Amino acid sequence: MSINQSNGDSDSHTLPLLSSQRSIINSTSQVAIVGSKVCPIESLDFEIIENEFFKQDWRSRGKVQIFQYIFMKWLLCFLIGLIVSLIGFCNNLAVENLAGMKFVITSNMMLQRRFGMAFLVFSASNLGLTLFASVITAFVAPAAAGSGIPEVKAYLNGVDAPGIYTLRTLFVKIIGSITAVSSSLLVGKAGPMVHTGACVASLLGQGGSKRFGLTWKWLRFFKNDRDRRDLVTCGSAAGIAAAFRSPVGGVLFALEEMASWWRSALLWRAFFTTAIVAIVLRALIDVCLSGKCGLFGKGGLIMFDVYSESISYHLVDVPPVFILGVIGGIFGSFYNFLLEKVLRIYNLINEKCIAYKIIIACSISVFTSCLLFGLPWFASCTPCPPDAMEACPTIGRSGNYKKFQCPPGHYNDLASLIFNTNDDAIRNLFSKNTDSAFEYTSVLIFFVTCFFLSIFSYGVVAPAGLFVPVIVTGASYGRFVGMLVGKHSSLNHGLYAVLGAASFLGGSMRMTVSLCVIILELTNNLLLLPLIMLVLLVSKTVADAFNGNIYDLIMKAKGFPYLESHAEPYMRQLAVGDVVTGPLQLFNGIEKVSNIVFVLRTTGHNGFPVIDEPSLPEAPILFGVILRSHLLTLLKRKAFLSRPVLTGHNAFKQFSANDFAKRGSGNGDKIEDIQLTEEEAEMFIDLHPFTNTSPYTVVETMSLAKAHLLFREVALRHLLVIPKSSSRSSPVVGILTRHDFMPEHILGLHPLLVRSRWKRLRFRFPQLSRIF
Amino acid sequence: MSINQSNGDSDSHTLPLLSSQRSIINSTSQVAIVGSKVCPIESLDFEIIENEFFKQDWRSRGKVQIFQYIFMKWLLCFLIGLIVSLIGFCNNLAVENLAGMKFVITSNMMLQRRFGMAFLVFSASNLGLTLFASVITAFVAPAAAGSGIPEVKAYLNGVDAPGIYTLRTLFVKIIGSITAVSSSLLVGKAGPMVHTGACVASLLGQGGSKRFGLTWKWLRFFKNDRDRRDLVTCGSAAGIAAAFRSPVGGVLFALEEMASWWRSALLWRAFFTTAIVAIVLRALIDVCLSGKCGLFGKGGLIMFDVYSESISYHLVDVPPVFILGVIGGIFGSFYNFLLEKVLRIYNLINEKCIAYKIIIACSISVFTSCLLFGLPWFASCTPCPPDAMEACPTIGRSGNYKKFQCPPGHYNDLASLIFNTNDDAIRNLFSKNTDSAFEYTSVLIFFVTCFFLSIFSYGVVAPAGLFVPVIVTGASYGRFVGMLVGKHSSLNHGLYAVLGAASFLGGSMRMTVSLCVIILELTNNLLLLPLIMLVLLVSKTVADAFNGNIYDLIMKAKGFPYLESHAEPYMRQLAVGDVVTGPLQLFNGIEKVSNIVFVLRTTGHNGFPVIDEPSLPEAPILFGVILRSHLLTLLKRKAFLSRPVLTGHNAFKQFSANDFAKRGSGNGDKIEDIQLTEEEAEMFIDLHPFTNTSPYTVVETMSLAKAHLLFREVALRHLLVIPKSSSRSSPVVGILTRHDFMPEHILGLHPLLVRSRWKRLRFRFPQLSRIF
Repeated sequence: MSINQSNGDSDSHTLPLLSSQRSIINSTSQVAIVGSKVCPIESLDFEIIENEFFKQDWRSRGKVQIFQYIFMKWLLCFLIGLIVSLIGFCNNLAVENLAGMKFVITSNMMLQRRFGMAFLVFSASNLGLTLFASVITAFVAPAAAGSGIPEVKAYLNGVDAPGIYTLRTLFVKIIGSITAVSSSLLVGKAGPMVHTGACVASLLGQGGSKRFGLTWKWLRFFKNDRDRRDLVTCGSAAGIAAAFRSPVGGVLFALEEMASWWRSALLWRAFFTTAIVAIVLRALIDVCLSGKCGLFGKGGLIMFDVYSESISYHLVDVPPVFILGVIGGIFGSFYNFLLEKVLRIYNLINEKCIAYKIIIACSISVFTSCLLFGLPWFASCTPCPPDAMEACPTIGRSGNYKKFQCPPGHYNDLASLIFNTNDDAIRNLFSKNTDSAFEYTSVLIFFVTCFFLSIFSYGVVAPAGLFVPVIVTGASYGRFVGMLVGKHSSLNHGLYAVLGAASFLGGSMRMTVSLCVIILELTNNLLLLPLIMLVLLVSKTVADAFNGNIYDLIMKAKGFPYLESHAEPYMRQLAVGDVVTGPLQLFNGIEKVSNIVFVLRTTGHNGFPVIDEPSLPEAPILFGVILRSHLLTLLKRKAFLSRPVLTGHNAFKQFSANDFAKRGSGNGDKIEDIQLTEEEAEMFIDLHPFTNTSPYTVVETMSLAKAHLLFREVALRHLLVIPKSSSRSSPVVGILTRHDFMPEHILGLHPLLVRSRWKRLRFRFPQLSRIF
Repeated sequence: MSINQSNGDSDSHTLPLLSSQRSIINSTSQVAIVGSKVCPIESLDFEIIENEFFKQDWRSRGKVQIFQYIFMKWLLCFLIGLIVSLIGFCNNLAVENLAGMKFVITSNMMLQRRFGMAFLVFSASNLGLTLFASVITAFVAPAAAGSGIPEVKAYLNGVDAPGIYTLRTLFVKIIGSITAVSSSLLVGKAGPMVHTGACVASLLGQGGSKRFGLTWKWLRFFKNDRDRRDLVTCGSAAGIAAAFRSPVGGVLFALEEMASWWRSALLWRAFFTTAIVAIVLRALIDVCLSGKCGLFGKGGLIMFDVYSESISYHLVDVPPVFILGVIGGIFGSFYNFLLEKVLRIYNLINEKCIAYKIIIACSISVFTSCLLFGLPWFASCTPCPPDAMEACPTIGRSGNYKKFQCPPGHYNDLASLIFNTNDDAIRNLFSKNTDSAFEYTSVLIFFVTCFFLSIFSYGVVAPAGLFVPVIVTGASYGRFVGMLVGKHSSLNHGLYAVLGAASFLGGSMRMTVSLCVIILELTNNLLLLPLIMLVLLVSKTVADAFNGNIYDLIMKAKGFPYLESHAEPYMRQLAVGDVVTGPLQLFNGIEKVSNIVFVLRTTGHNGFPVIDEPSLPEAPILFGVILRSHLLTLLKRKAFLSRPVLTGHNAFKQFSANDFAKRGSGNGDKIEDIQLTEEEAEMFIDLHPFTNTSPYTVVETMSLAKAHLLFREVALRHLLVIPKSSSRSSPVVGILTRHDFMPEHILGLHPLLVRSRWKRLRFRFPQLSRIF
């Protein structure tokens, strides 16, 4: 044992980490706040459970089954693309027509100078729409609130947020998003589209309702978390593709921001899905261009392809663009900071009562209506430019020159921005050859309004995205900078607005390649590429120095145990044995039914090591890990033995693969539902055929950082810790799960590490933290 | 033991897999043919070697060191971007001017109707350039031959192909690529640019020559395979970015095709690198547009931005585009098939003697010259169209209407394609409003010529890429289809050429998102997106049914043990214990010097388990794994002890982190260089402080597929196999390395699996295999 002592000696730097000194309470939050409901968070089983039953089933699959699987894989992607693009199209159609109608009616009243009536109609319709959105969200599907991107991102990381993929959530998400966006709230539709796409994908994979016998036999291969994860990834790519008509951007968004695990094959499938979206949308727009879509059709989704002409810029334009990026990064990180604080305040209020949530939503709506209708009165009327490219003032609904209260031949520049749909405001800001259309004060007022309105609007209990608000805020900021730089630059103000939007997106969302491609696909000009790359890099670098990206902040606030791809530096100083906690529940290879029921009733664990006890003096041997859901199935089907013997092949005959298929979230069996007679409780179950005989294991002396790498890269739910020396009585020391790798948990166990200098470097606004 | 028997029973499906029945010879190829030199292939150490020494060194790093590391990381990316863009620019400049001069001189002679002289000058200059390229490649740096993409891809997978990252290879690659492309061989420059980028990155990371004391202290953190891999990934992204002026495409190429491991942080760094490339190239082109770059400047790198106007297409265009994709896929896979066969034949010849290689290169050059000069004579002269947009016939060097032998006012359409640089040929094929410029026969002759010439040109001993040949072949095929479809489509022939190039690229290289973005960035029109996506998907799907992508085929032919990201289906039927082979070399924690020297001399292994033998009756305990290179360092520095005692902290004092830094390929110490006295041989070394105490382990009953997943996802070099039961005398059964996961090795051990139905499904051309 001298060797072990020497290890102790050389570990003297890490004295506080010795097991004797640590506290043993698992302090990580195992519950999360979704809406205001406190729900336990479960992990997902991405690992293939290689038990004898699975292997038997797998071996029995012939070429026909392989063909079915491959065919279904592509068919599902095709369907996801088709359905998501149809939803995206209908979404746009509905929003454009609802909001458009509202603005047309109001504008007509304004033309007749019935201003009071116009305000009433405007604010009443906004309030009605918001109320509808918030009521269905709060009562029917609270999981549909917000953008949904954090939930989907957490799901792809292996966290099963409850209720995010139900049919109910899907409907509320679609309808709620349409009404919320139409109600002139400053919320986006891209985030909800991503959630919608993911939801469609998950529902398709589940394949209809089992209750109504609507499930298809060919779908049986997709009834596991692994294949569902791939579908959800494709679905989220389709969501962005449909929202921005940006198929490549959608794939990259799913890859860069959403997915935690990625394979080349998945890239291809996501690409296929978004290609379907692109082709379907293209065909539908062809239909709309012929004027059959009401007020829709002129805009052509939110594709701001305003730069079909060639652009020239030179080295002299780099410094202002660089500064634009720096300030965009600071604003972006500040935006994230404020948004998180506001969300925390909202959460406190929301926890109390559903009515509060709806009251908040309605107050925000009324406040927004007042601002949108009130602020343009402060702007002065500008005479129409004689060389305007379009009608001035604009009488219809879109265009740069809104009349508002102005006399004929004049326009209100602030109204053109603020008293308009977000898409039109973005299009106006991005427009070229309109350098003199807007006043300094108007753009500045618009920027400040958007900045704060979007922060307060996001948290309302309705589907609400962040992309469009961030784009509109960034575009106004960029346009303002462009006006300040003025003649010193060869770029026009519209281009500055595009770059401003990029810098704000970069500062808030912190993506690089995907944002770059999305902006290129939105503006449809590749010549901008170097400048957009520059501005994104600068703003992300600056913003990263202050805080994390907006979705990670929201995810953290919601309490999802998201597993980062890198281990924290201090994990390298810890061994696995330092964090693994007991007590551990073990089963014997042939276990008594009553024991199993007792353990399942008294613990919430999802995986249990199964050991075999050979004849003495040999130590017990680790046989594998069995899942709670499999045990429940065994109990439910009462596959019991009267004597403790091995079953062998007979075990398989009573079960089909479907019995062990993973049900959708929340639909699994529960131990409380299982009723057993006393006689049954005294019987035995042979767990061997259903035990995963290939669990991943680490030795207890393995460094925690390396175990984290294994856990994360191989997408595990349970990681068995085995003892270093074989002299121990139990062949397994414990099980590591996702929670054991959470920094909060580790720092809770080893409080001295909090002050260690091996933490991530990040600057903080100390003075800002004190304000809140 | 009844339990184990039952396992045997239920495994009866897999009877042939029992260890007693397998052959024990490791039949996997452990050597590879690079050029004709037979070299042993080493794996790379991407795993962090967590020994006490590393931990000590790591703990001693303060904020200053962390800053140094982060600063250097970005500085190196900046430098990679800068250097690669400069190389790419000079490369283009040199090729355009060399090849351009050649064509101008020849054309002038043709104008004077001195055809014989023109042919002589043309073929002699081609031969001279080819000879130069092949001689420097064959004699100075054989590793610079070919495209280099397979080697870099293998490197990023963990295979250290010898000599690919030396300064010598870099120079030969650059100069050789310029001369080979200028010599009118049908070879591309994109592949060599990728290799160049990777080479620059690796050399920068190594940081100058140690011999001349030119290494910088701040670079010390990059002296390991892990950081070097990240740099090489960025370098290969920069290569594509510089070759095609396609920064986003470059990042995606590195992500989709090159990298085996990818992190979000790496995406960002690669994006930064290519942004630098884009910005530098943009600035340099600004310089060239003012006419200071000789014949260069008009073309503007190889950016075919011929589609600045808007395009319209409708549903009726989808069927021909679909068929284009299908045929492109078939051609593409056939191209791969032929290319691989030709490479195998070349390899047989090349193995014999260097002179043969050069003779092949020269014959190909002469043959090419004859074809390029001879074929246009078969084409008839066409009168110039009266409404031509450019001068007709073109007297300078680029343009659609080459005069060749034709009388004034006429042009030779085949000469415009074939008697031209590849870039100009592509530009001509992609050009719009030239639907009547080419005859059916001319395009067809050009297609057939390119198809076969490019197959035979790739294998010559000179830097040679595949991108441009595939693009030019695909463009001619697409243009031909466009001409066949004719008036039935609303797309012009130039668009068909773009789609044809996409389909051929998709059929041969099998990338999706990256090819899509590269083509978009080349043609600079985003409206094409849905059609390009469609054609890529179709061609890849069709081609995948026949064979693998071209780089994988070449990699396999070169014998690189590339580790696929997915396990083969039959691996799920095997346990780790079924493939692990002995005999295993173990060291004790405190080992005798002579033992170590003996083992290092007699085996080529790179990792050795270290065990501790506590007092009996306890079984020996696995302490960790020690690397060969670390043992060699210990031997070289003679850190010996006269008695077998633990050294503790004294061990660290004699070493610096630099002593254990991983040198570049081939520069490591060798056991043969170490001379020890007899007295020293009788001394001891305490291996504990230098042993990686956190090796990844799997139990011998773990399924091979899961072990493969672990090995691949965590990027290992050694995977320890530990016994299931602790009763065994040794705490470790064996070590799995990359070779143990190679399908050839596994199928060699278990020949009955060859006929198993759990193999990948793929159609094969049986009749074609019989031809060769």
